[in-house]
Order: sequence, then C-alpha cells, then structure tokens
Amino acid sequence: MKKEPGSSYQVIYGIHPVRETLLSGSLQTLRVFIGTKHPNPTLQSILDLAHRNRVPVTFSSREEMDRMTGGGNHQHIVGIVQEFPYADLGEVLGSIKPETQKKLFLILDGIQDPQNLGALIRTASGAGVHAVILPKDRAAGITPSVIKASAGATAHLPVVRVVNVANTIDRLKQEGIWVYGAESSGGNPLYDLDLTTDLAIVIGSEGKGIRPLVEKKCDALFTIPMVGPISSFNASVSGGMILYEVMRQRHQAERKLKP
Amino acid sequence: MKKEPGSSYQVIYGIHPVRETLLSGSLQTLRVFIGTKHPNPTLQSILDLAHRNRVPVTFSSREEMDRMTGGGNHQHIVGIVQEFPYADLGEVLGSIKPETQKKLFLILDGIQDPQNLGALIRTASGAGVHAVILPKDRAAGITPSVIKASAGATAHLPVVRVVNVANTIDRLKQEGIWVYGAESSGGNPLYDLDLTTDLAIVIGSEGKGIRPLVEKKCDALFTIPMVGPISSFNASVSGGMILYEVMRQRHQAERKLKP
Repeated sequence: MKKEPGSSYQVIYGIHPVRETLLSGSLQTLRVFIGTKHPNPTLQSILDLAHRNRVPVTFSSREEMDRMTGGGNHQHIVGIVQEFPYADLGEVLGSIKPETQKKLFLILDGIQDPQNLGALIRTASGAGVHAVILPKDRAAGITPSVIKASAGATAHLPVVRVVNVANTIDRLKQEGIWVYGAESSGGNPLYDLDLTTDLAIVIGSEGKGIRPLVEKKCDALFTIPMVGPISSFNASVSGGMILYEVMRQRHQAERKLKP
Repeated sequence: MKKEPGSSYQVIYGIHPVRETLLSGSLQTLRVFIGTKHPNPTLQSILDLAHRNRVPVTFSSREEMDRMTGGGNHQHIVGIVQEFPYADLGEVLGSIKPETQKKLFLILDGIQDPQNLGALIRTASGAGVHAVILPKDRAAGITPSVIKASAGATAHLPVVRVVNVANTIDRLKQEGIWVYGAESSGGNPLYDLDLTTDLAIVIGSEGKGIRPLVEKKCDALFTIPMVGPISSFNASVSGGMILYEVMRQRHQAERKLKP
C-alpha cells in the first residue's frame, strides 16, 4: 500500500483541463508543454496564465506530446501536475475509533467519468464515509477535474488507490467489515440489508458494473428498486441513494439506543 | 395551463449545443443561422451536418444573432429548434388511477444546470414520479442538453411548465396532495416524514434553494442529514436520495399490506 516512487506526478492534457488546473491551483502544475511555436489566442492565454503562476513552459514536438499522452487528444498542450496525495488504507483503518463510530468505506470499482467520481466523493464526504477506495487501473484517478466536481471534498476525505480490489476486500473482511455490492438488478432490495455494521459498499463502473472477481468477494449483492422504462440510475445518483440509506439506518439505530 | 401559441420553438446557440442537437435528432432543428461568410472548419462541419439533415441554413448579421440570443455567447451559430412537447397538469392528474397508485410529483423550483435537470428527470422516471413540474422563468427548460442528460427519460415522463409555482401548489393541495420542500438545513429529517400519501416534493435551485413564496406554500420542510465540512449534496444527488426514500417507504408500506 506504499506509494510507488514513480507516481509523484500525473500528465494532464487538452486546453480545458490544463487551463482549469492552472486556474484552480488545487494541484500544483510543475511544467507546461506547448506543441506549437505559433499558439492561437486560446493557447496563448494558457501560456500567459502559466507565466503568471511561475510555471515553466517548454516547447515540445507533436511526436513527443503524442508519446506523453499515450496518443490522447492533447490539443498541443500538456501539463505535468503534482500527484494527488492518496491515503494509506492501514492508516485510515487505524484512525477510526471503534467505540464511537462504525466503519464505512466506499469502493468504486472502475468509475470512469470524472464528474461522477467527483460527485461520489462529495456525497461520501457528507455521508460520513471514512475513505473512498479506487483501483489503480481502468478507473479515473483524482485529477483536477475530479477535485472540481467534488466541490472540495477531496481535501477532507481520504482517497486510497489499490492495485487489487479483491485483495483489499479480503483485508477489510479480516477487520470484520461486511462488503456489499451494488447490482443493477437481481440483488436484495437495498433496504432489506442491515447497514448498521462495519461496512464497505462496492459500486461498479457506469456501463459494466462490478467486475466478476470483485463481485465474488462481496458478502451480499443489493439492488435499488426502480420502475419504468429507464434501465438504470446515474452512477452518482445511485451512490447517493445507497449512502443515504446507510445514514438513515445508522441514525435510526442510534436514536433507538438513546432513552 | 394551455400551451401559448408563440412557444412552439426555442433558440439554441453555440457550437456544441447546435451540433449536439443536429446529431441527436431528439428535437427537430427547423433552421440554422450562421454569422460569418467564412466559417472555420468546426462551423463548416455543422453546416455540412445541417445540409445532410435537410435543415435550411441562413446567413445572419452579428447584430441579428446577438438579438436572437439575448446577447449570449453564440459563437456565430444559432439553431431554431422545435419546442419540447410539455404536458398539461390537468391531463396528468386525470390519467393517474387513484385506486392503484399514490400520486407523486417533483417540483423543481429553479434548477439552472441542464446536467442536473436531466439527471433529476432520469431519476424521477425510475422512481415512479407522475410528472416533473418546472417554472417558466429563471429555470432551465427541456433543451437538447437536458434530453441527453436525462438518458432518454424525457420521452417517457411528462414535464409540465407552469407560470406560477405557488398557484400550482395550491391546485395540487386541492387535489389532496401533500407538498414537502427540501431545505439544506433545519427541516425535519427526511425519514421522519410520511411519504406514502399523495405527494409533491419541491427542490429549489442549486445555489439559493426554494424561493420564499414557494416555500411558504409547503406543508412541511425536510432536510437530508449530513456530516462533515461539505455544506450540501449536489442537486441531482439530493433528488435521488429523496426519491429513493419515497420508494422505500411506499414499497415497505405495500409489503405490510400483503399477507
């Protein structure tokens, strides 16, 4: 779970992401690469912004930019940005006081869309989740767009990135945490599960859901009831419904305990 | 509640909205206005698209385009698009069978963001809402962007536009419908309300919430419990939580009735 030595920066590209990152300052921009010696007014305004923020700008060839971005649509502009400070799962587990709070984790198994990921982190923060867990591969990481969509919640809520989600679930189970996975149909109705125990909720990717190897590790699968011709709720809306249900059950259980 | 004679088309503008509308075909484009005699490749691709869809293209002056769009950032391209077929509240009310279903309306008092509006309509459709009610002024209408964000739900769920939301609430109350408004803090906990009656839920705009004159008309105000430093959930996420709670209460009430 240690941070890899090589993962201390990330490459972002395209006019909008590079400009947004320079404007927001949420993650430090270390360098900007520009792919043309004759920037149009939009690119020039980004270079001016970099200059004002004292970010060095380097000219780069198209081939080099294609290589840096893995052939992405970089629009002749690339930014090298400080990596988001991911949290360590062991430290998060160690920081939770079992006498006062039940554990709550949100495992996002492959959310691709930065808007959805940011919205889910915002919701998780407001619902009392202790950490959001993301896989390193085939999923959005915490980019400047995600930070923006989270409305600042990434500054408060630990985000853990793991190489192997199935192994992480095994580790959580060893800690006595129940693991429940969201299915678009066929699972138990969400409100039939007891969500007042130490808990990790797994939500899969927008199109494909939870990967089979991860799904096998879940203690139970649940479904949000729905009606009509629409086949699914938006991923961030589903996440909100699930975390609301956790809050509801926990608040009502606490209330019963009070005289 | 009758449709006004003059409201049979809407003006959209800017490269992305005009292109998306031509591509999706969700609302018929009646005419495209182009503001330059020397279109750049992006504008030219939109003109080609209009040509393929047999949509007439007319050259227009910058002043004329500024006037059509109320001074909007039109990027030299304007589309005249068929108006969304809004529903009539009286017809919706008449179509609900009271012996088999409890009424459920979602009143969106000033949602501005097309993504949020589309996501809310998608959620409402999956949660069994009978109609979404929007004010005519100071709110997003059903534009092509909203249709796209709704994942097609606008084709199934009636959307009603009303001049005066407060008057509409009076009318719903006359039908025996309870009206509950969402507040970011200070209301009853959502799960303490009985949501199994005939019901209209009011959600306010992203920043300002429900307008005071509308709020006064509500039978009760409720709040979704939340913790931590984030001050609110995203509007479409909140809507999802509320409609989930309605579904949960209604399903559990139905289950109790069954032997």
